[in-house]
Formats: sequence, structure tokens, C-alpha cells
Amino acid sequence: MLGLMQQRELLISSFLDYAEAYHPTVEVVSRLRDGALHRIGWGGIAARARKLAKALQRFGLRRGDRVATLAWNTHRHLELFFGVTGSGIVLHTVNPRLFADQLRYILNHADSSVLCFDVEFAPLVADLAPHLPSVHTYVALGHRDELPDHPLPNLVAYEDLLDAEDADFAWPRFDENSASSLCYTSGTTGNPKGVLYSHRSTVLHTLSLMAVDTMAISARETILPCAPLFHVNCWGIPYAAAGTGAKLVLPGSRLDGASLWELLRDEGVTFAAAVPTVWLTLFAWMEQQPGLDPAALKLRRVLSGGTAVPRLVIETLRDRFGATLQQAWGMTELSPLGTVGNLTPRHEALDAEAQMALRLKQGRTIYGIELRVVDEAGTPLPRDGSSVGLVQARGPWVLSGYFKGVGGQAVDADGWFGTGDVGTLDADGFLTITDRAKDVVKSGGEWISSIELENLAVGHPAVREAAVIAARHPRWQERPLLLVTCKDGRSVTRTELLAFLEPKVAKWWLPDDVICVDALPHTATGKVQKAQLRRDYADWLERG
Amino acid sequence: MLGLMQQRELLISSFLDYAEAYHPTVEVVSRLRDGALHRIGWGGIAARARKLAKALQRFGLRRGDRVATLAWNTHRHLELFFGVTGSGIVLHTVNPRLFADQLRYILNHADSSVLCFDVEFAPLVADLAPHLPSVHTYVALGHRDELPDHPLPNLVAYEDLLDAEDADFAWPRFDENSASSLCYTSGTTGNPKGVLYSHRSTVLHTLSLMAVDTMAISARETILPCAPLFHVNCWGIPYAAAGTGAKLVLPGSRLDGASLWELLRDEGVTFAAAVPTVWLTLFAWMEQQPGLDPAALKLRRVLSGGTAVPRLVIETLRDRFGATLQQAWGMTELSPLGTVGNLTPRHEALDAEAQMALRLKQGRTIYGIELRVVDEAGTPLPRDGSSVGLVQARGPWVLSGYFKGVGGQAVDADGWFGTGDVGTLDADGFLTITDRAKDVVKSGGEWISSIELENLAVGHPAVREAAVIAARHPRWQERPLLLVTCKDGRSVTRTELLAFLEPKVAKWWLPDDVICVDALPHTATGKVQKAQLRRDYADWLERG
Repeated sequence: MLGLMQQRELLISSFLDYAEAYHPTVEVVSRLRDGALHRIGWGGIAARARKLAKALQRFGLRRGDRVATLAWNTHRHLELFFGVTGSGIVLHTVNPRLFADQLRYILNHADSSVLCFDVEFAPLVADLAPHLPSVHTYVALGHRDELPDHPLPNLVAYEDLLDAEDADFAWPRFDENSASSLCYTSGTTGNPKGVLYSHRSTVLHTLSLMAVDTMAISARETILPCAPLFHVNCWGIPYAAAGTGAKLVLPGSRLDGASLWELLRDEGVTFAAAVPTVWLTLFAWMEQQPGLDPAALKLRRVLSGGTAVPRLVIETLRDRFGATLQQAWGMTELSPLGTVGNLTPRHEALDAEAQMALRLKQGRTIYGIELRVVDEAGTPLPRDGSSVGLVQARGPWVLSGYFKGVGGQAVDADGWFGTGDVGTLDADGFLTITDRAKDVVKSGGEWISSIELENLAVGHPAVREAAVIAARHPRWQERPLLLVTCKDGRSVTRTELLAFLEPKVAKWWLPDDVICVDALPHTATGKVQKAQLRRDYADWLERG
Repeated sequence: MLGLMQQRELLISSFLDYAEAYHPTVEVVSRLRDGALHRIGWGGIAARARKLAKALQRFGLRRGDRVATLAWNTHRHLELFFGVTGSGIVLHTVNPRLFADQLRYILNHADSSVLCFDVEFAPLVADLAPHLPSVHTYVALGHRDELPDHPLPNLVAYEDLLDAEDADFAWPRFDENSASSLCYTSGTTGNPKGVLYSHRSTVLHTLSLMAVDTMAISARETILPCAPLFHVNCWGIPYAAAGTGAKLVLPGSRLDGASLWELLRDEGVTFAAAVPTVWLTLFAWMEQQPGLDPAALKLRRVLSGGTAVPRLVIETLRDRFGATLQQAWGMTELSPLGTVGNLTPRHEALDAEAQMALRLKQGRTIYGIELRVVDEAGTPLPRDGSSVGLVQARGPWVLSGYFKGVGGQAVDADGWFGTGDVGTLDADGFLTITDRAKDVVKSGGEWISSIELENLAVGHPAVREAAVIAARHPRWQERPLLLVTCKDGRSVTRTELLAFLEPKVAKWWLPDDVICVDALPHTATGKVQKAQLRRDYADWLERG
């Protein structure tokens, strides 16, 4: 027997409708290319998103077509988030920092018809254009007088598009399982793979972001998302901000200390989402400025994800800003959210050091996502905080497969998605990521965390960067091999570094060798290319 | 093009799974019949709910069958919330305060197979049983030694049922649109009508309850729901408590001042949901107790709905308890939530009196529900805080029709449900209910609020209770007629009462006559039966 409740589709347009109806004057503040701040209310964003929707119709776009973006966090990019998806068209956000061959691959794989780009990316787009047969229209996100000189087919200025339309447009209704947006994983190996979100998955994920125990986004917040809009839909923050009428402060491309400080102070930011590097940059800038009073800011919560957060960042935010840092863990395939570091009353009764231990974990499992760790045979391991295994996820905002079937079966028969992360879960649902599955060192059946060894190695005063890979070993199958680069004018020997590590790790975790190199290879997003290192050094221990 | 995300069904069992996995030791505290407190963790609730599910299977119940309850707020009733719905069976909660003929009608209309009841309702159930052909099993919610002596077919003790099972049971997965629970409106006219919720509507409604701007239920809260579990699923609080791992404090049948104070103080209640009467009872009891310090309680938020909240209650909670009262508005047909009185930063910048004016409204429209006011022709009215019209609602947790089609079409072609309430909406989405549509007085095309006149009339020191009805009028179609009862030993004349009202209302709002009566007729839930009054007095002004 079915219930007798309304079958109202869960559509992204409902968030913008809510913001427009009840919070039309709440501001969206954007840092423009010239550094100036642009202000518009949610009502204005909604009206412009509707004009955009009409312009897209005029382009002949149909539901399911893709519109790609190469853009920073500004109101125009935000309008695309709603105008494109609200029309039933798929928003394909692309990371402009990727290598040119990756950009070509992604844009062609997605078959995007329209490419919208920030004017400063015009040279990049001009280089790409000859290789993008599917793109029939290029939209420069600015006014006509900002149009680049580069030759691009059907190049139009975004503001001209909007000026030609009125806002008399009602968001269409369609199947909530329709595709809404497309993000590609940054994949350190192989080609990027596309994750195709649906309106339903996005709405459910956004409802979670509004929950107290998740991101607690509400009308009370002024949110500074330093995480890029092209990075997993900026963790879904734009949708939750609209769905609650929160004030948004979009930093454009400027994440330097002075620019961020100005936004934090002048816009009354209460909640910021940014990786640790952003905070370290801000702290370094602050040290050069006399008389700053971070405690006077309204900043109370900081969300950080994507990489483990150094204790120093947590403590500085707590002690100087009076702000709580919450680690979060997620991935493109999870929309992205799986955990957020919210403590419960029981945890808040712990002493400061015990609380810090929890804050250093990657967050607590949120309602809506099921997480588990399994061994290599797929058998679930206990949630005891120490059993290390492969992290799997399941839920209504987890992918079912990659775009166009790339990579084959993405989830098992029970719906579990192998995240590729290795870690532990504790009884409270706190997740600790210890490694990527492909980077872990399997020594005689036991797992050694490459990340943990790297974190220890960079603690040596001479070391700039460290990478641990699994080298083949005749007896133990694999053993850790440590590669380091040194700081300018410094050096370190194998013996010194092993002596430095020895008291800090179990004896069998000690790397079998240490190699000092001039540089480590990196991906476009700054990650060490361990696949490259494995190709070069996997037989190192067998060579001797 | 469809997205490529998991089609994981939204099922109520996911809330209990979450509580069991991550908050197994968080307590559910229940006041038992003898006044003692019973304690169990969410892990225990989950294990017992699974045993219950196995027992229901043994009864031969199939998906879609109905299990009815007549019970107060205790852990056993809570277990039924999860054990029944999680099995795909429909939980039919019944208000034991209804008149016997209503109970018979509702239980027969629902075709419930099993009736679970608190032992104290045994005499009531014994009277009902001969008239309930569909009920084949009676479950007394207690131990075997508490079984009543009344002759009931297939009478079993709940604890015996559970003792006979183990907890080795996995919640089934099924269509998220399957019916989950059934609540009947208390309808002041005609027979009660059933609202049949689905798992999907319940999960979406519950996600809203976790949102900061709605009920903000989280792992941080200790929740005292004085609202009965049989009243629209206790506003959905049990589901949200499980889905966040909040501590629950269930007051049983005891809502007296001493009992509530003990729970508030000893259990560290942070959030309570209760109608104003409960608070007025508590305040009256507190006045008799020396040395109480309500400011020392952990109570910070109070939710109240179902009736307008007197200013005194809001002020006392604020000034003596340090707690914020939030009005909420909803109805059985809305699962029930439509508005919650959360202020935004802009409102919090207002002065105390302006804030109070907002707190006296029935709450702010929440994301997920669309509300509008329309005139009698169905034309939407402006959201200006003053245009009075019929309130309509739409959304994924609004009904599409009543159980078994009773009452015909419940929503219009666009999905709008006519709530039967009359009121205003302002630009921020704050709702003010001025009347029920069937009670409003339509005088020469203008509407006069019966509720507002009644609230003013009871301000007269001699008046105990007041009711305003529309009496037919030869020129104005309808004019207000005021009926009052007087406090013991007090009396008031027509002239005195009209003189009292005259400075408080527009001249054309003044009742055309005042009738002092010995008593007003009431429904089982304590509402004045205006339908009865209309039958008796509608021609009063024409009689003269």
C-alpha cells in the first residue's frame, strides 16, 4: 500500500525559489577580477538566473545537454549553478588549473555545447577551442567591453545575454532523477572520470548540509566558501545557502591574506570553508600586520576537507579567532559529504587533549551516508578506531556509476562504493584516513601508511617534501621507500633521517631506504604523482 | 538524461540504524505508569524494535497492514514507531482521549489488525473490542503480570512477545512511497479523516526537522516531547531524535508541574515541545515551590504549536528560564510542519518589542513547504502581513488525498492543499493565523476574525471562555455573535462587555450581541464545538 502524499519532485530550483521568496535582499558579495566587491541580493541572483535560462533556451539547448564552466567563485558562476540546472541542463564545472590535455579530455568527454569562462581564462580557452568540436558557443563571464580579443566561435558576453532577456520564466518541473551537474575526479592515475549528479541526490545532500550535525548552514550564517565552485559544487554550499537564505561571500580568485582578512572583517563572515593552506597563508600574512584582532571577527566555524588539518591550524583558529575547525571528509563520488567533525555532548565533556584527538580525525559519519571499513576480502572490520581497512560508502548521494560507464562497475551488488581511501572508523563514527589504497605499503600482509610516514618525515627540519611508495621486496612483498626533497641550503642523509624516524614508528614501519631527490613530480592540483614515482622506483630495493 | 546516483530508498528504518550504530548508549528515558523512570539506550530500542518486527511477522502481518496504538509517550510506544513502520506495516496511532464513537469509527475505518494499548486503557479497550471486527490481536504494553482482567481476544503482553524473539532481523527494503503511518484529523465537523504518510514523506520531513532553521534537532539535544506520540507522530520528533542520536525524555501520561520539573532538572532537557497549557501548569506549580531556580536548567528552546501562544508564556520562558519559545504551525495533513518561529540576523537586530511581535506569529515558512494565502476566488494575495486569506500548502510532505478517498479531492490541480486556516503571510514568510475558514465572520464581504474577538473577550476579568460565531444578518450576510461563560461567582452584561471591547477593535468588528451561557460544548480534545453553536444560534439576530 502506498502512502497518500504529494509526489513533488526534489528539484534544485526549489532552493532558489526559497531564497527569492523569503530572503531577496540577503546579499551575495563577490570579489571581481579588479579586486572590487560586487553586491547583489538573492532576489537579483534569481532574476538573473531566470534570464540566463531564457538565453540557454535561445541557444537551442535541451534537457540533458551540458554547459561547461571555467570560472572562479563569483555571482555569475553562482547564477550558472541555478540557471543551468534549473533549466534541466547539466552544469559541468571544470577546474581551470588542470593541464591542457586533461581539460581537452574532460570537455570532449562531456560533450559540452557551451563553455562559460572568466575573462582571465581567455588565453587558455583560445588554446583549447580548436580541440573542442562539441562546443558551439563561448560565453565570456563579463560585459561586452571585457570580451577577449582571442578568436572564438560564437563568442558572446554574459551580460549581453542577460540584457537581451526578461526574467519572466518559471522553472520547469521534471523527473527528480534527471542529471543536474557533472564533475570529474582529479584522478592521479588514468583519465578523469565523470560523476553525474541528479536533482534528487543534490537536494538530499543539501538537506543534510542544513542539519545541525552536518554543516549547519542556516539563515544565521554569512558564508565564505574558499573551496572553488568547480570543486564538487563547492561542497554543495551554494545550494544550501540559497535553500536557507544565508549570506554568501565569494572571494573570486583572491585567496591571499589581505583579501581574505578584508572579507572576514568587513562582511561579518561567520562560517568559512577552506583547505589548511588558505589558513596558513592568512596566518603568515597576519604576522606581518600590527594590531589585528582576530578575536573581534564574527568567524565561529571553519570547515576544512580534502587533506588532514595540521594541529597548528586548529589551535590558532580556536585560540586567536575563537573559531572551531571542523574537518570534513568526502569525495566527488559522494557529492561530496560523508563525515563532518561535530562533537556530541559526550565528547565535549572530554578534556582538551582528548577533544583535540577527535578534531584531528576526518569527521563523524553523517546521517544519510553509510560508511564501513573492510579488509581486502571485503569482510567488514570492527569500528574500533584501530582496525585499518578499505573505506566503503553507500547512500542516496553516492554515485552508482561513472559517466558513460567509464571504469566499469563502480559499486558492488549491495551498493557499496570503494572510496579508494584506507582508514579506521571508531564506535562514534569518526573516520581517520590513513592512506590511499593504491599508496599503502603491504609488508608481509600488514599495512603501513605512506601518509603517516610522510607526515613524520616532513617533521625533520631539513625536509621540504616527502613521498613514501611501496617498493617490491623479495621477502615482504612490499617495503616502504622514502623519497625526500630538502629545503634550500639544507641536506639530510639516509642515516640521519632513519634515526629521526626510529623513535616515532614501529620498527617494521621504518623505510628500507631513503632517497634524496631534487624534485617530486606533481599533478595539476598539487598532489605528488606517486604513480610516476612507482614507475621509477618500484624495483629500487631489488636493484641493489 | 538521468543522473548516475544510487537509488537508495528513503526508509524510516535508516533513522534507527543510525542511532543504533553511532549512539547506542544515548538514553531514552520514560516515565512509567507508577511514576518510576525507565532507561534504555538507542541500541536497546533498536534491538527491541527488531524483536517486535519478528513478532509482527509471526502474527502473519503483511506489508500495508495496520497496527493501531492507544498509548502515552513511553519507550514501548517509541519501539512501535520503528518496529512497525520498519517492517513495512502501517502504524496507526490513535488519540485515547477521543469519544468512544470516534474511536470505534477510526479503528474500523483503518481496518487495524492489531491494537497495542497502555494497560491503563484496558477498560476503554474492553468496551471497544466487541465493535472492532478487524482487530484479531490485542497487545497490552507491559509485562504478563500487568495483563488486564478484561476479556479480550488474543490478548498478549508486549514483553512476552519480545521475550519470545531474538533481535536477528534486518529491516526490509521496499518502495519509499510505501505507507508508513496513519493519523486521523480530529475534525470538529464530520467524521475524522485519515492521512496516510509514506516513508519518503516522513524521511524528508525528518530531514527538515534536523535543519537549523526548522527544529534544529541534533546529537546535542536532550528532547522532552510533551506533545503526544499519537499527535501527528509527535511532530516527527521521534524520527529526528533517532536520526541524530538525541537523548529523548518521554513523560508518559504525567504532565503535572512536579513531574515535568523533575524531568527538566534531572535529565538535563535542552529542548521541549509542548502546548502553552503545559507551561502554564508548570508555572502555576512553580509558584507554590520555594527556592526553584529555572535559570539553572539546561532548557534553551521550547517549541509550541497547535494554538497561539500567550505573550506571558514567551516572556516567562525568556526571562526566568533563559529559553526561547518558538511557535510552529502545522497540521496532520502537513506531517505536520509548515512554519517554525526562527528569527534571522536581520530580525535579531530589531528591538525587543519588534522581536516579540514576530515571536507572537505562528512561525516562518520552512524550506520544503510552499505556503500562500488566497482570496475566496483562489487568487494569491500579497505577502504583506496584512492581506487576510485562505492558507494553502504544497510540498513533498503534504498529503495528496485522504485515506480511502474520504472527502474527495484534497488538493487542487496544481497540488495546493486548502488548510482551512485563515491568516496572513509577511515578506519574510512569517505566518499569522487569524481564524479557521469555517469560523470566520464574513460581514459585507470583509472578514472578521472570531479568534481575535475571543482572545479579547477572555481578557475581561469576569469571562472564563468565549466563542464567536457568524450569525446570519439581513444586510451584512453575517455578523459576529459573542457567547461567553463567566467565572464562578462573576457575571457580565452585554453592555459591559461591548464597552470593554469597543476601544480594542474596529467599530465594525464589534459583536452585534453578547449571550451569557452556562457552558459551551467541547470536542474530545477540548476545542469549542462551533458547529454546534452555529446550529443553535445562527439565526439569533434574525429572531429578534
